[in-house]
Amino acid sequence: MEKAIQELKKIDADVHVLSGVDALLGWDQETYMPPEGLETRGEQLAMIEGLAHDRLTDPAVPGLLAELGSTDSNPMGDASLSEEHRRYLRCFRRAWARAAKLPGDFVRERARAVSASQAAWIEARATDDFPAFEPHLAKMVDFAKREAACLDPAAKPYDVLLDQYEPGIDQAKLAELFSELKAGLSALLDKIRSRPQVDDSALKRPCPPGKQETFSRRAMALLSFDSGSGRLDLSAHPFTTTIGHGDVRITTRYHERNFASSIMSTVHETGHALYELGLPERWKRSCLGDAVSMAVHESQSRFWENLVGRGLPFWKGQFGALKADIAPVIDDLGLTDFYRALNKVEPSLIRVDADEVTYSLHVILRFELEAALVSGSLSTRDVPGAWNEAMRSLLGVVPPDNASGCLQDIHWSMGSLGYFPSYALGNLYSAQFAQAMRKELGDIDGDFARGEFGRALGWLRLNLHDRGSSLTPTELVLDLTGASLSVRPFLSYLEGKYAGIYGF
Amino acid sequence: MEKAIQELKKIDADVHVLSGVDALLGWDQETYMPPEGLETRGEQLAMIEGLAHDRLTDPAVPGLLAELGSTDSNPMGDASLSEEHRRYLRCFRRAWARAAKLPGDFVRERARAVSASQAAWIEARATDDFPAFEPHLAKMVDFAKREAACLDPAAKPYDVLLDQYEPGIDQAKLAELFSELKAGLSALLDKIRSRPQVDDSALKRPCPPGKQETFSRRAMALLSFDSGSGRLDLSAHPFTTTIGHGDVRITTRYHERNFASSIMSTVHETGHALYELGLPERWKRSCLGDAVSMAVHESQSRFWENLVGRGLPFWKGQFGALKADIAPVIDDLGLTDFYRALNKVEPSLIRVDADEVTYSLHVILRFELEAALVSGSLSTRDVPGAWNEAMRSLLGVVPPDNASGCLQDIHWSMGSLGYFPSYALGNLYSAQFAQAMRKELGDIDGDFARGEFGRALGWLRLNLHDRGSSLTPTELVLDLTGASLSVRPFLSYLEGKYAGIYGF
Repeated sequence: MEKAIQELKKIDADVHVLSGVDALLGWDQETYMPPEGLETRGEQLAMIEGLAHDRLTDPAVPGLLAELGSTDSNPMGDASLSEEHRRYLRCFRRAWARAAKLPGDFVRERARAVSASQAAWIEARATDDFPAFEPHLAKMVDFAKREAACLDPAAKPYDVLLDQYEPGIDQAKLAELFSELKAGLSALLDKIRSRPQVDDSALKRPCPPGKQETFSRRAMALLSFDSGSGRLDLSAHPFTTTIGHGDVRITTRYHERNFASSIMSTVHETGHALYELGLPERWKRSCLGDAVSMAVHESQSRFWENLVGRGLPFWKGQFGALKADIAPVIDDLGLTDFYRALNKVEPSLIRVDADEVTYSLHVILRFELEAALVSGSLSTRDVPGAWNEAMRSLLGVVPPDNASGCLQDIHWSMGSLGYFPSYALGNLYSAQFAQAMRKELGDIDGDFARGEFGRALGWLRLNLHDRGSSLTPTELVLDLTGASLSVRPFLSYLEGKYAGIYGF
Repeated sequence: MEKAIQELKKIDADVHVLSGVDALLGWDQETYMPPEGLETRGEQLAMIEGLAHDRLTDPAVPGLLAELGSTDSNPMGDASLSEEHRRYLRCFRRAWARAAKLPGDFVRERARAVSASQAAWIEARATDDFPAFEPHLAKMVDFAKREAACLDPAAKPYDVLLDQYEPGIDQAKLAELFSELKAGLSALLDKIRSRPQVDDSALKRPCPPGKQETFSRRAMALLSFDSGSGRLDLSAHPFTTTIGHGDVRITTRYHERNFASSIMSTVHETGHALYELGLPERWKRSCLGDAVSMAVHESQSRFWENLVGRGLPFWKGQFGALKADIAPVIDDLGLTDFYRALNKVEPSLIRVDADEVTYSLHVILRFELEAALVSGSLSTRDVPGAWNEAMRSLLGVVPPDNASGCLQDIHWSMGSLGYFPSYALGNLYSAQFAQAMRKELGDIDGDFARGEFGRALGWLRLNLHDRGSSLTPTELVLDLTGASLSVRPFLSYLEGKYAGIYGF
């Protein structure tokens, strides 16, 4: 059986090498590719994704899995295998089973369509032209439905899509969590609105990109992002991507009149990168060494961005450096005023710029719309109206145009339906993990105020990063926190934080 | 038969898509890749090169070629095929025949070894440590010999290697051309040495990289490098690479104390890029749309760098812009003094910085050494001694260390033995093509002085770029110039130019 495991691992390693190549093609498309290279890039992505699919669905795989006793009902295989091999089999089988059900031609056709759709979306957003993008969106919804039908024709299509980003969660469970979350956030928002608003005008002062970059790079280094194993570049939409072991790249963008946005965005992506860089080297090029889920990934970015990076202890240590790096922009600002401005709560139009209280409401809106798109109860043509109506009802604001409404996010243009809920789940995970971390480590705020992040990162590396995908997200949260995923730690974290800021 | 052609073209297109991916992996390794990503990159390059090799050697190919009547002795196939199809078959068969003789494992093993060897060379050059690089060099020589043995065990190994860069040329023919070239250059060098030396100290004044870049980008635009279809980046060693149709990238580097070097280097790479961008779109992703040979490629870079970019007419038009872009560095310099300084002839250590007269002598040295390495008459351990001895005999200078001696070039570290002669052949082609161009276009110097390069580029596009690989280099030079490749046009161009500069 050892030989069968080794053969699976060889296939898995090849798939990982190809997926790193795919990541480089994608990274380059967003950062440095000249515009005329787009058509070629679509061909290249389709080729590599097709080859990765072919490799993963090698005709030898079913026989190898059978030899190892792995079946749909017993994915971990023969009981005589080591625990590590059994977890590996579960993990590999999951990836393989999805791929095996998708025809290679479907994968190639979709890769080409995604490349064209992304380009159309960029153009449509720039010109506020939803009708120009709508046919692509319709295609993406269709691909999502076809994918779901291939993967599990008996299940609800949206559940099938959700499962690929967050194994073990479905629409019903999300609806339950999100309903509790919505109620809690709305109540908190009401309390905040009853108090005098914070003044954040100092954060809107012009600040040259070069100065923003200086502090961004300082923050990356402070949080132990190893510049020998990664990069920071510019792109229209910040993201993190892994080219391979020792090569994890993040991007950011600078807004002249919103320096805090780009800094926090860099810290956010640094959080993603620290997770990728902390994945166990012993399992490199193996699905066991991959991140466990999108939501857990997001918990890492949001932990560093929000629970650390928007916290008072962090800025006790770093405010002086920020003032110096971007001088003279906020020379006259005090720490408390800066901290309150950085955490101002106000319903607004753009998800990525939303505060910690309203952010998840943006996500719930997308969850509801994409579930309706996939079930067919919402047509792509009606997205702008439905979007604006939901914004009014959830946040009390209505976008003046589609560019700052339903065209703002890249996800649907990439066909990633089912991805958005991960962002809100990430918030929940981050608070629940942080609670467990504090219980074990004690006064980490003191560390943060001293500019020391090693104990917190060490805890995450040991308990979370180093586990790779050996546990499911459900197992992981239970193991780390002794409880299943819950809305409470996140709401209680927010209540404590904003009670202090808004004085209620 | 149409169907068989289409099937070959499909395979060919896939190979081209993969080779663009390979180019991106290589480009990224030299420009942006973080150092820890190197091991992964080696795996990725090996994977992609292996897959491209597998695709090109698809088991269906021999049958398709046979169906089309293409054989070793009649590569163009059935006489009833169109001229374009017959030329396509010749071209495809050549690429396929080489690949089919190389085992896939050999290709993958070599890709991995090259990646490690390049990294070792960078380190060895930085620390002037030839012994650390020598085992890699020995491996590269061994790969080259094994490759030659696979491709044609009956032929002289070095001839087999030369053929892949410049079809139709062999060591004996090169020795003959180079012997005439060496004699002509030595005689010219003696004449120059009998005259007072030119003062080029103004070119060594400190000049900030940003200013060098401003003029470099101006020159690229002036020569019609379309920024929507390419990029300029930084790398240790300037190069041009094609990611695909509409995506051709060049790199340069800036020396604070040698601004002319980086500017001319950018113009050189722009010449390569103009060729790639001028290859016929109708044959994209087909071997018929590839550059015809390395030496013809080099003729394009050297035409723009030397025959145009180091010429007095060019600077009559651009000297004012250069002075302004890099002000105040050469505010006090006159056009004639600048032109003479830019063309100073002086034997020196580094090939890429050599003047037009001594440059080819550097190439002849490498030709002689690599031929000896491949034949076995020179051992890799004896390279430094042989290098220094040849430098003394050919150029009268001896490197103080191996970093500025036998470790200066990247080529051998990549296993590219047989490549160097292309540089000197490129000089010969460039002068011979320019002679034909002048005959047809008349006063192109007047164009250049007015900053107009469209007629010259148009001539090259029509007569050379647009032909792709439909002609062999031998056919091409005959078609364009009415003669086979000769040393005379190049020597006569140099004699005319330097008689003016040195006054003999």
